[in-house]
Order: sequence, then structure tokens, then C-alpha cells
Amino acid sequence: MPRPLEFNPDAALNSAMRVFWNKGFEATSVVDLMQATGLSKSSLYGAFGDKRELFLTAYDAYRRDRAREMELTLKQGTAREAIEVFFCKVINDATAVEFSNGCMSTNQAVELAPHDPQVRNRVETDFQLIEDALARCIERGQKEESIKSKVEARKLARLFVVAFPGLQVMVRAGAAKPRLADALELLFATLDH
Amino acid sequence: MPRPLEFNPDAALNSAMRVFWNKGFEATSVVDLMQATGLSKSSLYGAFGDKRELFLTAYDAYRRDRAREMELTLKQGTAREAIEVFFCKVINDATAVEFSNGCMSTNQAVELAPHDPQVRNRVETDFQLIEDALARCIERGQKEESIKSKVEARKLARLFVVAFPGLQVMVRAGAAKPRLADALELLFATLDH
Repeated sequence: MPRPLEFNPDAALNSAMRVFWNKGFEATSVVDLMQATGLSKSSLYGAFGDKRELFLTAYDAYRRDRAREMELTLKQGTAREAIEVFFCKVINDATAVEFSNGCMSTNQAVELAPHDPQVRNRVETDFQLIEDALARCIERGQKEESIKSKVEARKLARLFVVAFPGLQVMVRAGAAKPRLADALELLFATLDH
Repeated sequence: MPRPLEFNPDAALNSAMRVFWNKGFEATSVVDLMQATGLSKSSLYGAFGDKRELFLTAYDAYRRDRAREMELTLKQGTAREAIEVFFCKVINDATAVEFSNGCMSTNQAVELAPHDPQVRNRVETDFQLIEDALARCIERGQKEESIKSKVEARKLARLFVVAFPGLQVMVRAGAAKPRLADALELLFATLDH
């Protein structure tokens, strides 16, 4: 009979996730993971498998959290307001250490997706999820008339989906906020005409 | 007296650059670099220093090439046409193996910039270079009236700068072309109103 775990697996997963989010997969060492979780290598890999399995489990936990948060944000207020809140959050949150890491799916689109089909599928799923959520929100806005543009909602959503990783990459590289705020102002204006 | 090099350093640098562009810094091994250049470790590092120095030299060669190419592209035809060519190239070139790697500066904004000030400065310089080049091109378009928008050229340029790494990330992750083409159509439309 296996011994019961002597640590909280959710807390350990969350700590590991933060390291991967910050440093990426390749640059994260087992020592980094041990320090972040306070666990030995054998406890860590015993509970979660090898580095790649731990990474995928941590990444999936991140993806679930962010997807839930996006769905919630896009339901609040008028659709126009919800979209502004969703995108402004990216640049406002950049002052918080955690979110200065950008978006883990965007980072993985660059790091592992080109060479790892399992990561590529996740990234592709996430971009599709954002496109679908934004398209639904824009449709709602066109019905309630908080969004004046008559352009097909799906097409508008696709412009916003491209802007999303663009913003995240620039946040991660430390771009100045006024530059990003200017970009967002014009992006939102596409909803008006 | 040091022995003269028995290989072409530009060709070796170019081969090393292609590996770093494709795999990123961390995932590139010295074996990858030896295979790509056909050189021994001692020849390679003797000529270019350690892995990081080789990376920075290769990255700078890439940055010079791309900057020159951008300047050329943005001078051709009307400003409106030039901007369309510049951005459509990103998604059209994605079928070429090399350019399916996205943009090395965008990749480095994600990989090394957050933790390496020398890379971060290069990435920041490149985003500023693109913003300045696009702002000049948009100003030209407003004067010659190929661009109808009266919005300040610098501000318009900033929207396009955010779209640029967004597109590159999605190309690198293998996003379907029609999705990106829809986004570009609406992006270009911001130049018209």
C-alpha cells in the first residue's frame, strides 16, 4: 500500500507552475522545482511523474484557471466593457510579479509548441477558446448595441486573438505601458466602426 | 601567431543562427551546433566564444538582416501597400521552413529577455525600430493619401507593433492561415478610418 502523501499536492503543483511560467520548461531545473515546492526530487516526481509530466499537469492547471477567469470577465457588464476589462487587465496586471510573466500559453507557443505536438494541441486549443469566447462576447455586444461595428463577430474576434499574444509578449519583455495603452485604444476603436 | 580559420565564419554563424532561431537558446545543444556548422566544439567556440557569445553574435546578424529587409519593404510602392506587404509576408512566408520559426526577437522576448538584460535591450531596441519604421511609413501614407486615417501616425504604429509579435507567435505555433488573414484584413482597415 503506498504511503499517504505528506504534502499538499495542489500547493506543490501551484508552486511548480509558477516556476515553469516564469522560466519556461527548458530553463527550469529540478533544483528550481525542489526549492519552489520544498519537496525532494523523489517526492516530487513520485507524485507527478518526470519533469515533462509535472510540467503538463501544472500547465493544465494554469489553463483551467485562466479559462475560468476569462469566461467570468467576458460576462461582466456590457460586452464592450467586458472586452476592455479583459485586455486592459493584461497591461495593468503586468506590475504584479506573476503576470509580468505574460501568458503561459503564449510562452509555450514559442517554446515547446513548434516541436511538441502535445503542447501544440494545448496552445491551439487555447487560441481557439479565446477566439470563441470573444466571438460570443462580440455577438452579445452587437445585439445589445454596446458594439457598433457590423463586421462579423468571428472576424473581429480574430483580430483581438492576434493582439492577445502580441500584448503578452510585450508585457513579458517589459514594454512601456503607454505604448501598449495606445495600441489598445485603437484596437477597441475597431469595435465602433 | 593564431592559425588562419579553415572555415567560412559567416556561413558557420548563419548555420548556428538557424538552429537558435528554430530551437531557442536553452534547447540548443553544442551537438546541434556542431552538426549544423560541421565544426568541432573547439573550432566553434574558438572562433565565437562560448554558447552565449555565439548566440548573441548570431542573433545580432539576424537582427541586422531583418532590419534591412524591413526598411526595404516599407519603402516600396505606396505606404499602404508597403505595410500590407510587410505584414502579409509574415503569414505567407510561414510555409517556408525557416520563417515558420516566427521572429527571433519575438521568440527571445519570451525566452531570454525577462531574465537577461542584454537580450532584453536588444528586444526593446527591435520593437522600437519597428515602431519608428512603421510610424515613418504611416506618415508618408498620410501625406500621399494612401492612408486615410487622421489618427497620429505613432499611435497607429503602436497597434501594428503589438500585432506583429502576435502574428509571429501564432505562425510559430502553426495557426491556420485564414484566421490570421481575417485578423490582418481588419488591422489594415484601421488605416482607412
